[in-house]
Amino acid sequence: MDDHPTGAPIDAPEFNRRMHALVPLSGQLGIVATAMRPDGSATARLPYLPAFVRPGGSVSGPAIMALADVAIFAGVNARIGWTPMALTANLNTTFLKPPQPEDLIAEADVLRFGRRLAVYAVRIVSASAPMEVVAHATGSYALPGSR
Amino acid sequence: MDDHPTGAPIDAPEFNRRMHALVPLSGQLGIVATAMRPDGSATARLPYLPAFVRPGGSVSGPAIMALADVAIFAGVNARIGWTPMALTANLNTTFLKPPQPEDLIAEADVLRFGRRLAVYAVRIVSASAPMEVVAHATGSYALPGSR
Amino acid sequence: MDDHPTGAPIDAPEFNRRMHALVPLSGQLGIVATAMRPDGSATARLPYLPAFVRPGGSVSGPAIMALADVAIFAGVNARIGWTPMALTANLNTTFLKPPQPEDLIAEADVLRFGRRLAVYAVRIVSASAPMEVVAHATGSYALPGSR
Amino acid sequence: MDDHPTGAPIDAPEFNRRMHALVPLSGQLGIVATAMRPDGSATARLPYLPAFVRPGGSVSGPAIMALADVAIFAGVNARIGWTPMALTANLNTTFLKPPQPEDLIAEADVLRFGRRLAVYAVRIVSASAPMEVVAHATGSYALPGSR
Repeated sequence: MDDHPTGAPIDAPEFNRRMHALVPLSGQLGIVATAMRPDGSATARLPYLPAFVRPGGSVSGPAIMALADVAIFAGVNARIGWTPMALTANLNTTFLKPPQPEDLIAEADVLRFGRRLAVYAVRIVSASAPMEVVAHATGSYALPGSR
Repeated sequence: MDDHPTGAPIDAPEFNRRMHALVPLSGQLGIVATAMRPDGSATARLPYLPAFVRPGGSVSGPAIMALADVAIFAGVNARIGWTPMALTANLNTTFLKPPQPEDLIAEADVLRFGRRLAVYAVRIVSASAPMEVVAHATGSYALPGSR
Repeated sequence: MDDHPTGAPIDAPEFNRRMHALVPLSGQLGIVATAMRPDGSATARLPYLPAFVRPGGSVSGPAIMALADVAIFAGVNARIGWTPMALTANLNTTFLKPPQPEDLIAEADVLRFGRRLAVYAVRIVSASAPMEVVAHATGSYALPGSR
Repeated sequence: MDDHPTGAPIDAPEFNRRMHALVPLSGQLGIVATAMRPDGSATARLPYLPAFVRPGGSVSGPAIMALADVAIFAGVNARIGWTPMALTANLNTTFLKPPQPEDLIAEADVLRFGRRLAVYAVRIVSASAPMEVVAHATGSYALPGSR
């Protein structure tokens, strides 16, 4: 699948490069990790594209869910190194307020990082209004057994 | 936003045409409603695209969540007519088994259709194995107040 | 904790006896499994008690969530035998309609039964109106590793 | 149902008195609000009772879910005054780590407080280890229309 050793430390630029190669949809959407921290937290950004528009002039739900999912994936890779086979087990997204059509930022924080499962909470805000949460997600990733 | 009267009956081909115009991301992903029934249930299909690939050769989670979301949106429009301003309030998706890289089908069924909120369960299967659920979602849509 | 071998087949009366001994709260609430099937599905019942009342004359949410949780636990025990260390990992309950103050019945069905995790959907109805779902839950149980 | 005007300000002791009268199950479980703040956040406590034990010596899931539900209910009453007809619409609880058999504390924070729906995140910790989250919930309450 790729030539990079599983579990090797990885930073955000390299993570984005590999993710966009292995999960092309994330690259098409333009989602990038902007910060990956050793504790497993991460920040990701969804640059606004006209294709994301939704009736009412907001950002469509699937784009927001993709952002939340990538933010958690970045956090998992920040904590345990390159792990392409970490898989989403569950994502529960609550849409709190239709965001303006602009860049969105997701902040993913670890609730619990177990051996087999990592559980996260994600807060999503608009780039221009970072104090107002527009969507909130909780998600879990199943971690590959070979670790 | 569009010239079509809210609440007017709509069939799947016309729904797809309007949805792809108003929510361009759904069109880029290629998601289509294939059945819309008066009781509010609906079927949607995600034709497989190489961009959906995920490490392990499966379909990426965001594509699956987008499919579930559109299936519910189609169901809402099937039940109460054209309602572009119906908005996802919550979507909780559980990924049960990584699907093969092929078309996916979502079946959305009404759990409760209230005046202000519609709640659905969605079962997602691979086109070639319709008896095995690969993902399950529950979702709610907020309905516009002017109905 | 108890003298019964993990994994041994168990029927509903015996399950109820052990569960009420090991999880006293379930006994205080009066929840009983009424059917446990080899495929992992199960039915549980919450006999109405005055303590469950809620403003508006309905049944309080925590009693309903307890019923859903026990129904899944019964299903897990139906499928893999007596497994007291199976633990709830997640329960997502949506309250669709305030039920009348009467007995409630939960039907738990397997969405996926893996080696480490069992995922269920649960439909909850009033005893007198079995066709109307008053609450819906999806839940997952972590299965002990020694199986 | 009770003689208290809906929407009147209420503090934690009075809230507990009325809640235990109107929702007897909460009183039987012994759950109390310990702080209710004007911004809609609240703290609730579940004093440990032997009935809450669970195989493995932990606290049973339904007791934890009841605590999360009451914490949100307290928060809603803190924000908009006495509102007995506020009803749980959804509660999604993730169990992160089996807590020790001791008192649990829930901290409920507002994600969004709308006119018709209030959405919360709840963190649950053991009284002796307040930095470690043992369970996390997101929940929404439907607010009565007459406000």
